[in-house]
Amino acid sequence: MATTQNNPLTSVTVIGLGAMGQALAGALLDAGHLTTVWNRSQGKGDELVARGAVRAATAEGAVRASELTIVCVVDYDASQAILAPLADALAGRVLVNLTSDTPERSRETAAWAQTHGLSYLDGAVMVPTPLIGSPDALLFYSGSRDAFGRYESTLKALGGKAAFVGADPGLAALYDLSLLDFFYGSISGLVHAYALATADGVKAADIAPYLNSIVQILPPIAQYTAANIDAGSYPGAQANLGMMAAGVEHILHAARTRGLDVSQLEAVKSVAGRAIAKGHGTDDWASTYEVLRD
Amino acid sequence: MATTQNNPLTSVTVIGLGAMGQALAGALLDAGHLTTVWNRSQGKGDELVARGAVRAATAEGAVRASELTIVCVVDYDASQAILAPLADALAGRVLVNLTSDTPERSRETAAWAQTHGLSYLDGAVMVPTPLIGSPDALLFYSGSRDAFGRYESTLKALGGKAAFVGADPGLAALYDLSLLDFFYGSISGLVHAYALATADGVKAADIAPYLNSIVQILPPIAQYTAANIDAGSYPGAQANLGMMAAGVEHILHAARTRGLDVSQLEAVKSVAGRAIAKGHGTDDWASTYEVLRD
Repeated sequence: MATTQNNPLTSVTVIGLGAMGQALAGALLDAGHLTTVWNRSQGKGDELVARGAVRAATAEGAVRASELTIVCVVDYDASQAILAPLADALAGRVLVNLTSDTPERSRETAAWAQTHGLSYLDGAVMVPTPLIGSPDALLFYSGSRDAFGRYESTLKALGGKAAFVGADPGLAALYDLSLLDFFYGSISGLVHAYALATADGVKAADIAPYLNSIVQILPPIAQYTAANIDAGSYPGAQANLGMMAAGVEHILHAARTRGLDVSQLEAVKSVAGRAIAKGHGTDDWASTYEVLRD
Repeated sequence: MATTQNNPLTSVTVIGLGAMGQALAGALLDAGHLTTVWNRSQGKGDELVARGAVRAATAEGAVRASELTIVCVVDYDASQAILAPLADALAGRVLVNLTSDTPERSRETAAWAQTHGLSYLDGAVMVPTPLIGSPDALLFYSGSRDAFGRYESTLKALGGKAAFVGADPGLAALYDLSLLDFFYGSISGLVHAYALATADGVKAADIAPYLNSIVQILPPIAQYTAANIDAGSYPGAQANLGMMAAGVEHILHAARTRGLDVSQLEAVKSVAGRAIAKGHGTDDWASTYEVLRD
């Protein structure tokens, strides 16, 4: 077993050898861990074996080979189909589930794990496969704080930014979905911005450099918006919701004139309009929070 | 008149003394320009006069006082109400309209200016009032390239990043609306992300620092998305539209479970779904552009 005196290495099992599972197993091999791999369908993992991974003949053999098992498959239906028959083999061991799904599925799986006497960490990978193993790669973990503490250095081999976000096993998925919620709003607005500009013959590449002026103001906005929401008070500063809703109306008008799909903008305008109707016209944009939760 | 031998200063008139107009006039005073001001309603600009501005008794007197007039009022209905009677006084002079509205209104005003023999620059202010006059402040200009060249150093007193984006006078407004389109998509997604996280008892401030990991990837995404759109080809790389639409579905499911408004997410999902139906499932997210333009 690959160990050194001052840096004891763990043996780890990786179940699921899709693109992400392979990247995870590869990062463990790079860090010197004895790595056992298994995939439901045959013919995956040859490259990992060539790099030193052990291919288990059965899923049960895979989880029995290590104290720590990491599973990363397509969704929780798939992970439970694999894991449910392995409850006895996993008892007393640590399971880290990096499959993407909803917080509810994570909590169900944690409850199942508790019933069967295994330590459970739920995780969410926030970077694409090429960044797995890098010091800046962010992964969220939630669930067993003890298991995270015990294997933190091993988990950091997957991504140097290993963030334990709470004992509620649903929180890693919740943080994941929240970040993606912001992401999809942003990139949908981005493509729409290009559709608006190019409708008048401007090249998207001509607009692109100026978008950085918007990107730059997002971190301070994210910070004060969070503070306002946590305080439940939304004082309008340089701009207020009424002024901003008028700005949205200008974009909507220009986009409609150009025949663009405006469904996202209409949703944004509707939310702002309902917040204004609730008396938030002179408040900050953050006050739309009150409408989203209605 | 305030001039120095090596840095000839211009006399400038500012019409409209709302918060933005006052900031613009203040920046011109700071830069040493002889600044004439006028506002439709009385009682505005006392502070500017105390700092050395000349208050004109009439709008006509204001525009006759300078070769360059900058107007910044609430919208183009307001600016044309002021400017239309001043056509003779403005003839042969330069007018810069920094009022916010749509590209169509800018083009109409430029056509009016051409009819009456004045040089016209349309502009858009991309920063809040406290940043007016700073070297990093971005303002777009379009229309008369000659007028921009002649007054570029004067205009840089308003914001050091004075970007001339084309001879089409609608382009400054178009760039403005495109950037804001991206902005409103982003901040709407941001507030929704906080609504999702806080629904399970997480503080918005706990999520906020991690949002920077999303902000960081936006500039490269903006760049390659622009390149794909300009090329009309959307090769899917690490992620593709089909995988991303499944991610949106996870967010939607979690948001609905928590009783949140999901109108923006539904619009995003609908656009992605239509792009997949058109055969873009293995393409990049940028391919949603094809649906937005349908």
